[in-house]
Order: sequence, then structure tokens, then C-alpha cells
Amino acid sequence: MNVLWIMADQLRWDYLSCAGHPHLHTPNIDALAAKGVRFTNAYVQSPICGPSRMSSYTGRYCHSHGATWNGFPLRVGEPTLGDHLREIGVRPVLVGKTHMVADAEGMKRLGIDPTSDLGVLLSECGFEPFERDDGMHPYGPYDPEPAYDDYLRSQGFEAENPWEDLANSALGDDGELLSGWLLKYANMPANIPEEHSETPYMTRRAMEFMESAGDQPWLCHLSFIKPHWPYIVPAPYHDMYGPEHIKPPVRSQAERDNAHPVFEAYINSRICRSFARDEVRERVVPCYMGLIKQIDDQMGVLFKWMEERGLMENTMVVFTSDHGDYLGDHWMGEKDLFHDQSAKIPLIVYDPRKEADATRGMARDELVEAIDLAPTFLHAQGGKPKPHVLEGRDLAPLLHDAGEIEWRGYAISEYDYSTRDARATLGVDQADARLVMLRDARWKYVHAEGFRPMLFDMASDPDELNDLGASNAADVLAVCERMEKALSAWARRHHSRITKSAEQVDHMLATREPPGVLIGYWDEEEFEADFGKPFSERP
Amino acid sequence: MNVLWIMADQLRWDYLSCAGHPHLHTPNIDALAAKGVRFTNAYVQSPICGPSRMSSYTGRYCHSHGATWNGFPLRVGEPTLGDHLREIGVRPVLVGKTHMVADAEGMKRLGIDPTSDLGVLLSECGFEPFERDDGMHPYGPYDPEPAYDDYLRSQGFEAENPWEDLANSALGDDGELLSGWLLKYANMPANIPEEHSETPYMTRRAMEFMESAGDQPWLCHLSFIKPHWPYIVPAPYHDMYGPEHIKPPVRSQAERDNAHPVFEAYINSRICRSFARDEVRERVVPCYMGLIKQIDDQMGVLFKWMEERGLMENTMVVFTSDHGDYLGDHWMGEKDLFHDQSAKIPLIVYDPRKEADATRGMARDELVEAIDLAPTFLHAQGGKPKPHVLEGRDLAPLLHDAGEIEWRGYAISEYDYSTRDARATLGVDQADARLVMLRDARWKYVHAEGFRPMLFDMASDPDELNDLGASNAADVLAVCERMEKALSAWARRHHSRITKSAEQVDHMLATREPPGVLIGYWDEEEFEADFGKPFSERP
Repeated sequence: MNVLWIMADQLRWDYLSCAGHPHLHTPNIDALAAKGVRFTNAYVQSPICGPSRMSSYTGRYCHSHGATWNGFPLRVGEPTLGDHLREIGVRPVLVGKTHMVADAEGMKRLGIDPTSDLGVLLSECGFEPFERDDGMHPYGPYDPEPAYDDYLRSQGFEAENPWEDLANSALGDDGELLSGWLLKYANMPANIPEEHSETPYMTRRAMEFMESAGDQPWLCHLSFIKPHWPYIVPAPYHDMYGPEHIKPPVRSQAERDNAHPVFEAYINSRICRSFARDEVRERVVPCYMGLIKQIDDQMGVLFKWMEERGLMENTMVVFTSDHGDYLGDHWMGEKDLFHDQSAKIPLIVYDPRKEADATRGMARDELVEAIDLAPTFLHAQGGKPKPHVLEGRDLAPLLHDAGEIEWRGYAISEYDYSTRDARATLGVDQADARLVMLRDARWKYVHAEGFRPMLFDMASDPDELNDLGASNAADVLAVCERMEKALSAWARRHHSRITKSAEQVDHMLATREPPGVLIGYWDEEEFEADFGKPFSERP
Repeated sequence: MNVLWIMADQLRWDYLSCAGHPHLHTPNIDALAAKGVRFTNAYVQSPICGPSRMSSYTGRYCHSHGATWNGFPLRVGEPTLGDHLREIGVRPVLVGKTHMVADAEGMKRLGIDPTSDLGVLLSECGFEPFERDDGMHPYGPYDPEPAYDDYLRSQGFEAENPWEDLANSALGDDGELLSGWLLKYANMPANIPEEHSETPYMTRRAMEFMESAGDQPWLCHLSFIKPHWPYIVPAPYHDMYGPEHIKPPVRSQAERDNAHPVFEAYINSRICRSFARDEVRERVVPCYMGLIKQIDDQMGVLFKWMEERGLMENTMVVFTSDHGDYLGDHWMGEKDLFHDQSAKIPLIVYDPRKEADATRGMARDELVEAIDLAPTFLHAQGGKPKPHVLEGRDLAPLLHDAGEIEWRGYAISEYDYSTRDARATLGVDQADARLVMLRDARWKYVHAEGFRPMLFDMASDPDELNDLGASNAADVLAVCERMEKALSAWARRHHSRITKSAEQVDHMLATREPPGVLIGYWDEEEFEADFGKPFSERP
């Protein structure tokens, strides 16, 4: 069995027609959902690229792996899905983005050359980089030479910075470059023929990998850069959608008036004030929809290609994202906090195995975490469970049994705002700039260190407009108390005890002390009574 | 400045005359206390060798480093005090025991040869092994060839297993070996001249290191194997003390009757039943006292030798232990739980700096943790604070200011009984076989996953005979609630976010996005208003 793990970047859970978007039609992704299971309550472990991905790639919570924000290196030695797969002879390959930052200091401490084979694996969080591209190559000292630039040059395009000037800019009337970094130009076509833009390029790279893969089983992480900003898309996607296709913003004056201090700090930030403007939404959202439409079209190309080669019969295909995009909902831009626009992701799992026939086309509402994918892949590809390392849960029961399944009670997501303006605004110590979301079947609770919590009743208030976290009503306080207990129980768990497996622990219990060590025996007789042989015959 | 960090193994806090023992006189250790500070509320981070030492050697809680029991390898990549010291040019050297188990699987994953220089450092938790000896070389497949065996052979001693047959056995009337593993023989002299037994041998090895050290600053961890079992000591120490010198056992029938389930499982275990017997205490305790007396005599030799060489003027000298020994108190043998006999340690810090003149001879009752030593050493030897890695607190304020100091509110210690009989007895899942102690100025609280807590009022019940954890009295419940909140706050903290320093986090906040990245700007005008230069001049 192979695994094709497709991840879009910053794709909201509800911007697919199978998830109910009224204007954005994504028939190819919908078709995958019709063959697989669509999870309607899937949460990332942090609503921001780097930590979310480090959780997905390690199968571990941010609290455990410690890479809690973009740019925080994943510590050297943190076991990755790639490590686990290599152990069982599966080749874990990256095509696209990881947002991984290498732990240069840790590698130096361990004498590992970052350019060696091992150093490269450690720098790519365990993946073999068939193509690494984090989709961020502006002017400035920021990885300015992606393979994609070489590709564009090889196609005859000339530019000082092909990524920025071609794929992420538009052309003005006088041929001048209009930067895709500026939201005003989000309705302009990118300065590049569609087939050479980033999404089709990366799709082709995944096909090139699969074509070259041979007989060794693989996991291919096809990790798109889009619909993440810069918000710009080539023709014909740039004007497929207009303001008339935008869902009205989910926001209310009441939520501003009653804003939790951390939420307030965010909505008062420049970025969020920008996305609260109608003109921004009217330019950006149609472009965002176009970027998704382009991905869906590429999914059509890819799935057809795989079907023609019989790959759909032995490949688990997963379509998901690393977090959402507020797009002006809740007066927010970007991601960061835990409203469903930000922390909930699309997650579709197509499992080719016969056992999965029972669930094809199902939508399931169990609380699923992005860290569930790593153990799901490992087990599907023949690996043994590693619950002492992998903190997610194998999704196989949900994929193979259409009935009710005993599942987790809480989904957890974390956020570290120590590097964000909100911390300065609020005067919070960097060690305390932490939020943790707990979502159960009905409630979404956010613990905010040093502040009151946030609380939403997702049953009566699915749009999360009424934060109950300041309420003193007895029923609310009871929910908060239960959530705090659950948070404490989760935080207290082993998160770092990764060097002994469950089997090894059981073996230690069964075999008692190391050989030759005797504790608390009075004399030879006591020994013989316990061991059934004379003391002189001890090992 | 150098550091000599002396650690005894399994030495109770109260078996020194400076700590009030009525019959055991330890003038040399007392003299160190008279020149330094003696901490009267120092707790280890786990009352068992391996995890306690891994905490001491990393400056991190067990919850953080994950090596929660003996034999659990310290994960590769976990930064050690040795790593921090090497960074600043200090040579961290081991003479004696660490109880470290190398993370062979992790090293394999990282392509590190365990026999290479780096592999050796990683196998010795960051120390350069001048001499490594974990003091456990019985017959059987358990590191049977220590350097100490070679030493004994070089001195003309002949034995199949010199460690076991000479240093840890006695001779019977007919010349037969009587094993030191059996408690009955604890009153016999070990089959070795005193000067060749383990404690003086290791003391000399430390002197040999210091003599050879040259000008590079060093930290020498002189880590004795004793008074840890096998309980046997050479003449004249074997009969210096008798039953008349034993303090009466601290235990009561009431504590058995009212025993917490985990405590009950322990006191019903074979080892504890053994130590509850008077004949065991009467044999073992005098021997244990003799072993300590021998250490104290060696401290006299060592300190005199250091003084003669001027080393006392530029060496911080610390005397401590890795945990205690119940010796039958509380119906317990060994260590394991959190009564002061087990979790509290002797801790004496002699600081040669002028600033420490203010505190010489003081006994301080602040709540100190063994993980405080690593940052204390690092800073004393010129290193910068690393609070993102080192979870302890530099003791310098307590060493340099005799007044009241604002200090921590809780000392924390952890215990993982997943490999112990108690887990089988109680039918606890291995992930839940966890205890956490919180000690504040007055109370000792033990959170026991899945059970009621234990609680002792150390003010009115310093002997910990009255466990209040089952009480429903309002004042008790209020204490428990406060302790649970403190435990949760501690557990929620960052424990793994070790790849970004506080300075780096502040820098990230100050400098905002990476260069070239622009989020949420509408147009060139907005850019210019914010950056004070035209968009065309962006980096």
C-alpha cells in the first residue's frame, strides 16, 4: 500500500462544495469524498503552518514536539513519520511545502553535517525531498532559489525573481509589475500562463515522483503552497468568482464589544483591521476561491492519471490542509485563533482496502486530530503501533466500520503567541503567551493563560458569535471546570517518554530487576523460596 | 571557577550530623556545610536513581526529558549540562555513576556510532567519562567488566568477579563467600581492605582527574556508588554502629490502616515487607551508617588534598545525593514514594566567591530542586541563562544573600510506577501509572492518577504519619484544589520548546515577519505609511 497525502495550505474546511460551499464547485475533491470518508470535525494541533505541520509530521502535539510557532526548529532527534516509515521499508517523499526549520544548533551538538544525507532528512522533518518548496521566495534574504525558479527559467521565462515577478505578480497597463503581496491586486491575473503556475507544477512533480518510484512502497506528501497568500492566481481563475459569490462575513458587533482580551488584541491588529474591510474581502475571497478551484482542477488531472495507472487500487489518498483562513470572519484575517474558520480543516481519506467499502461516501463527525494521520499511515503501511511516540489515533476503525465508534472525547489545539504583537499589547510574559483549545462534542473551550477562558456552545451557536467565557452562570462554570480538568489530564500525560515502547514496559514489569540484582532478600532461604533454586545457582 | 559536584547514591537527607543525626558523626561534610549553605528542603525530581539523575544532568523535569524510570534511555538530542558547559569551554567530567542508559535506537536513527567520541558523550549523558561505574556488576549479563575490577586485579586480588566477590561479599568462617546481596550479611566486613573498596577508590580517581586537569576550567561529577545497596562495608566501618545507634522507625499502624492504594501496594511488596522486619533494620542500618561514615572520612581526605593545592579557592563544591532510603520507615524499604526519607536529599553548596561570604554556615529552608544545580553551575562558570531549556533556578541568590529571597512556591517530584509490581497489583494502565508530588512551604501533596491524592501537613505532622488525602474536610479540600491548580499550571507550561531562546523570541516579536513577506497590506500607500519608504524600495 502507498499513501498520497495531499495538503493544501491555509484551506478552510468549508471552501469545498462537498462541505457545503454554495458557489465554489470542487467536483474532483468531492469525488474523492464520495469514495472515501469526509471528516467534518477535524482539527489541526495548531492553527498556524509550522507547528501544525510539525504535529502532522510527527504525530505529536505541539506541547510534545516544542516547535510551537513558525520558525521554531523541530528539535533534532524528534522522531518523525518519515523515520517510522523508513524502519518498515517505506519511502517517505516530500513534494512541496513543510515549513520545517532545521535545528542547526542541535545538529551541531550532535556533529551532524546539515548537507549530509542524514542532515537533509533532519532538515526536511524526515522526508526525502523530491522537491521542497515552502512557497515563500520574495525579494530579500529568504531562500531565493527554489527549483521552481529554475523550472520557470527553463521554460524561457526571464525575471530577476521568477517566483515573485511571474507567479506572484500581475502586470499593469504599462507592463509594470503589480505585486501579489498587495491585496488590491488580488483580482488581477498572475503574470504567468496557468500551466506554469505553482499548483500544476507541483502536481506534475508528484506525478513525476510516482512514475519514478518503482516497486518500493512509498508515502508521497504532495504539499501545495496555495491557497495561502500571496493571494494571486493566473487566468482563467482570477475572475471566475466575484463579490456575488462571497458568503457574507460571519461576525457581529457583539463579539467585538464582548471580546476576550487576546481576541481583542488580534482584531485590533493591522492585518485583522485590513480583513475587516469589505474592499479587502471583495478582492481577496474571489481570488482565494480561484486558487482552490485551480487545486480542484489539478486534483482531477492527478486522480485521472493515477486511475489510468492502477494507482488508485493500492494508494490511500488523503486530502487535507494545515489550517484555515478567517477571510474577515470574526473581524479576523489570517488564522491564529481557534474559530472553525481557522482551526478546523477539510479532511478526506480514501482507503482502497476492501474493509473501507462499508464507509465510502460517509461524512463522519467524530473529533479527529491532524496527528491521527501519522499512525493511520504507519499502520496502513504495515508498521506496528507506537503509542509511546505517536499521540494521534489510527483512523482505521472510522474508515472500516460505518457504525458508532468509541472515540476521543476532546480534540486539542494549541497556540503560542509569544512572537506576536498581541503579547506586546497585553504585556504577557513570553512563557505564558499560550492558548489551548479543547473541543468536545458540544463545546469549544479555549484556555488562555492568565486570562478568562473563551467558550462557545457549538450546538446553539455554531457560528461562534457568543463567547460565554465571561459568564458566571452555573452551567457555564460547570462546563469550564470540566474542560479545565480535561486540559490538566491531557497536560499531565507522558508527552516525552518516547524511548520505551509499551511492550518494553510490560517486559520490564514481568522480568523484575536486571539479572543478578537482588533487593531485600534476607538470606539464601528466602532466595530459594522465591526463585525455586539454591542461591549458589543464581545466574 | 571549577565545580566539584559530589553525589552519594541513596543517601537520606537526615543521615548526617549537620542534619541532626544523633549517632552518625560526619565532621567533614559538616565542615563543608559550615563553609557553605545547607539546604534543608531540597527535593529530587524523582525518588529513584535513573530519572532523578537524568533530571540533575539535564536541569529538566522527568515530564520534560522523558526518562522516567531506571533503564529508560535519555532520548538522543536531549541537551545536557555537559553540552552547555562544553559550549563555554568548560570540561564536564564524570567520575563514577550516572545510571544513564544510552538511546541506542535514537543514535541509530541519527547515524551516530555509539563508540565514537560523540556516541560516548551521548551514552554518558553529556559527561566525558574519566571513569564510569554504575556500581552494579553482579554475576550475570550486567556490565561485568568495570575499570574497578582491573584495578583490583592490578593490586594482586584474584577473583572471578572482583566487584562482587571482594568489594561486595564477606567471608564466612570456612572462607566461603557470603553475598552482600543478602541482608543477613550486612554486619560482616567486606572481603577487601578498606583502602581498596569503592568509595576511596573513586575519591582517588577524582583526585587523579583534578591533578591531570590543567588550566581548562572543569566540572567534575564525583558520583559515589554508596551507601546504595549491596549493603556491605569493609572493616572498620562494618561494626562502628550497632542496633543501639538506630533511630526508631518512623511508622504507625494507623498509616497502614488508612493507606492510599498505591502506598498499600508498595508496603505489601516483598521488599517493603522485608524492611519492616526489625532484624533487617538492625543489620542494614548500622551498615548503611558505616558506608556514610566511610564517605565522610573520604571527604576529609579529599577536602584536605584540595586545600593543599589551593583548589578550594576556585572550586564550587557541592555535596548531595540522588534520593534517600526508607530503611523501614513508613513500612517501606528502598525509595520510590515521596516521604522525606525518599524524596528529600542532603544538599550542601560551598561557593568560594566573595559574594557567598554572607551566607557561610547558613541552613536555608527554601524549596530547592535538584534541577537547580545545572543552571547554578552553568552561570557560576560563566554561561548565559537558558531558561527555555533549563527548568531549574540558579541558586546564586540563595548563596549570596542571607536575607529573605522571593523563591518558588512548589517543589515538584515525579514517579512512574509502570514497570513496578504495584501497577500489576492495582491493575493500572501503564500510561496512568504516574504520581506527582507538590511540596509547598507547609503541605506535601501527591497527585495519583486515577486515585485519591495523598496529603501531609508538614507543619503539624512532619513525620508524615497522617495522610489527609481521603478527608472531606473543607480546609483539606481547599488545599487539594489549590495543589491541583498548581499541578495543572506546571504541566501546561512549555516543557519541550527548547529550540528558541528568550532573546530569539523577543527578536522575532520585534522584527515581525521574515524579510520580504507582507501580510494584509492593501496597496503601495499602506506600505509606505507603515514602512516610511516607497513600496519599490522594499528589501
